[in-house]
Amino acid sequence: MSTDDDATALRLDRDHVFHSWSAQAHLSPLVIAGGLGSTVWDHAGRRYLDFSSQLVNTNIGHQHPKVVAAIQEQAATLTTVAPATANLTRGLAAERVLSHAPDGFTSVFFTNGGADANENAIRMARLHTGRDKVVSAYRSYHGNTGAAVVATGDWRRVPNEYARAHVHHFGPYLYRSEFWATTPEQESERALHHLERVIQAEGPTSVAAILLETIPGTAGVLVPPPGYLAGVRAIADRYGILLILDEVMAGFGRTGRWFAFDSFDVVPDLITFAKGVNSGYVPAGGVILSEPIAKTFDDRVFPGGLTYSGHPLAMASIVAALDAMADEGIVENAATVGRDVLGPGLAELAATNPLVGEVRGLGVFWAVELVRDQATREPVDAALMGRVKAGALARGLLPFLADNRVHVVPPCVVTPEEAETGLGLLTEVLAEVA
Amino acid sequence: MSTDDDATALRLDRDHVFHSWSAQAHLSPLVIAGGLGSTVWDHAGRRYLDFSSQLVNTNIGHQHPKVVAAIQEQAATLTTVAPATANLTRGLAAERVLSHAPDGFTSVFFTNGGADANENAIRMARLHTGRDKVVSAYRSYHGNTGAAVVATGDWRRVPNEYARAHVHHFGPYLYRSEFWATTPEQESERALHHLERVIQAEGPTSVAAILLETIPGTAGVLVPPPGYLAGVRAIADRYGILLILDEVMAGFGRTGRWFAFDSFDVVPDLITFAKGVNSGYVPAGGVILSEPIAKTFDDRVFPGGLTYSGHPLAMASIVAALDAMADEGIVENAATVGRDVLGPGLAELAATNPLVGEVRGLGVFWAVELVRDQATREPVDAALMGRVKAGALARGLLPFLADNRVHVVPPCVVTPEEAETGLGLLTEVLAEVA
Ligand SMILES: Cc1ncc(COP(=O)(O)O)c(C=O)c1O
Ligand SMILES: Cc1ncc(COP(=O)(O)O)c(C=O)c1O
Repeated sequence: MSTDDDATALRLDRDHVFHSWSAQAHLSPLVIAGGLGSTVWDHAGRRYLDFSSQLVNTNIGHQHPKVVAAIQEQAATLTTVAPATANLTRGLAAERVLSHAPDGFTSVFFTNGGADANENAIRMARLHTGRDKVVSAYRSYHGNTGAAVVATGDWRRVPNEYARAHVHHFGPYLYRSEFWATTPEQESERALHHLERVIQAEGPTSVAAILLETIPGTAGVLVPPPGYLAGVRAIADRYGILLILDEVMAGFGRTGRWFAFDSFDVVPDLITFAKGVNSGYVPAGGVILSEPIAKTFDDRVFPGGLTYSGHPLAMASIVAALDAMADEGIVENAATVGRDVLGPGLAELAATNPLVGEVRGLGVFWAVELVRDQATREPVDAALMGRVKAGALARGLLPFLADNRVHVVPPCVVTPEEAETGLGLLTEVLAEVA
Repeated sequence: MSTDDDATALRLDRDHVFHSWSAQAHLSPLVIAGGLGSTVWDHAGRRYLDFSSQLVNTNIGHQHPKVVAAIQEQAATLTTVAPATANLTRGLAAERVLSHAPDGFTSVFFTNGGADANENAIRMARLHTGRDKVVSAYRSYHGNTGAAVVATGDWRRVPNEYARAHVHHFGPYLYRSEFWATTPEQESERALHHLERVIQAEGPTSVAAILLETIPGTAGVLVPPPGYLAGVRAIADRYGILLILDEVMAGFGRTGRWFAFDSFDVVPDLITFAKGVNSGYVPAGGVILSEPIAKTFDDRVFPGGLTYSGHPLAMASIVAALDAMADEGIVENAATVGRDVLGPGLAELAATNPLVGEVRGLGVFWAVELVRDQATREPVDAALMGRVKAGALARGLLPFLADNRVHVVPPCVVTPEEAETGLGLLTEVLAEVA
């Protein structure tokens, strides 16, 4: 631990590491060397309260000792094995994941992350229905992949070529309604009408799946209004369309439930997951299949796969993380902290700071939307968000920023005291920039 | 370790684990519980000599103690961190990877595996050239992803939408020539002519990249004939097209060189890697960028990314694996075993067994092509390949089979004695089924 290591980390990063979603020349990344629970630190020992969970993935907190130990033990036994083999740790991981899914979900296809989870869910939906289009929301993020299988030349390309592929719709978002709605009920009804009209106009028999984040995350923690998800389920059923719920960010505890859809009146046909399932300790994700879809591939080849599907190290971290979350009441903690601390504290912030247009969320999954003017709801600009970031970091708070929003997304293990502390710092920062 | 655990592993697998590239109902996967070097075993202690390297990824062998220790140490320090941070282990991994690349390669974008490595290389090539098409070979595999980013709704979709996308060509493969060629030189020249004609017919200014496996792997270890890759480089240069070499399977020691293209007279613009870089101990892959392409994104946002880019645990395994490979002469071992044992041994097999149509390869990267008739070259059928598999497993040899071929792809650490043993077993099996 020394400032030298921070300098070396920064130099090597700036010299050689190409970053996601960025122009490379003007980055000044924070060095992170270690962490525990809701705290991370650099080599010099400067500490930050992690209100980002990194990319909203460390649900179990940093360096949970049981998960670390499980990774170390599996590393000593067998780090990697081909997906075509049977492996006990993989079987146990599938069993654990399914234990939290609704009845009727029978198998798990493991991937390396969220993008390839969605890839494979889309593939399953298309082959199960014999249809090609996928309807998803403009306000959504499902991953960064889109070409490797069609660049592939061999037979694996052919069942994966779709010309008529992706259609987008607007989801409910009352604060910035696309439907001239003024109440949650109206927003819900009108968003459903819009979705059904898009599907009708596209031709319902061409639509394989509706793919939705249960609660759109990066887009702003857009908690769906009453009746919306049940209504989507009804539309899907009306037209023989499958419903894929992307629980990559919202799943495994973030909302104070195992799955975000547990808070709503809906069961999907396919569930995609990553992040929270093992808090990202080892890259992993996957698709949970309901029985009818799994059965489609009993006698028919599923044309998808990857080298590290069901990777033992990842599987060991899933087993340990899900066991620890269950044993230690970590999901319940997220619900409690959301209900007793973050919810009331953010409501107070919204009531007192003129920059705050809206706060919304549940569990440890909240967004604070910053506006120049509460009447026009005009978003604040990037310069102001830069000051929010600088102010938070200077106070030892690691924030998650997206567009004009601060997402308040600490680990599910955050204590009420840490949540209070973080809220206090955020309140200070927003008072300063207001 | 007990046969009970084997039964449990198999039961859980069959009940709950959905497998890649398969119909699910009739699988009977081999249970693998542990391994060391070139050997793996089940819970009951039944051992197999691994002539598959799993999916041709365990170049350093199973459970290399230095890589296991590095994973365990990193697990104790920091398992996961957001890609937007700077992390020392990540910087060191980038430095190690670049140390094996030719001059002029300056940065590394890390991914979770091979598919997303190719995704991001394609994205870079398109944005760097301002062109959309990608030309790749029919006999190729580049990964299973193809939809998540266009299913995404937010801004990250828009720079990734391409209607005119993928074009395929035939590469050189003298044993089954598409060009009526009879010598390697003729195959090379004609394959180049064909590639250039495809590009001319597509419109060269619409082509962003030629994407090739340096040595097509799954397609049959199709070692390019003299002059082919240099000719491809010349065509790319003639039309301002980038050359992406996919070194996911061929790279990091498999051919007895650090990169497969080191054996040929060619330097690409982008290199994609996964598998051998850390032998798959933790899911990882990436793109190595040459300076002009990296510079394109100095002031322009690169519209790609993933949660686990530069994952610390993966990075630690890359540093340790590349160091051990260098310190222990593992790449040189692959070259020696290929030259002294596998090459001569397989030539002998081809000369003596009527089933063997051709053997080809280098290092620890070989294919044995099985035919019903050496004159017509008609491939053997799946039933015969099933007998090859059963015969090999019964003798404790874990083979890699693809179509009508046995790929002889042990770890790069395979000893000359193990290579002899495996060849002996394979010779027996092929004699039995002949
Ligand atoms: C809802 C959602 N789906 C998919 C993804 C993609 O996951 P990954 O980055 O692991 O590919 C993300 C990542 O943020 C996400 O939030
Ligand atoms: C040459 C090549 N490219 C890409 C891939 C895809 O890699 P992954 O399975 O890690 O996505 C493979 C996998 O076998 C490969 O052999």
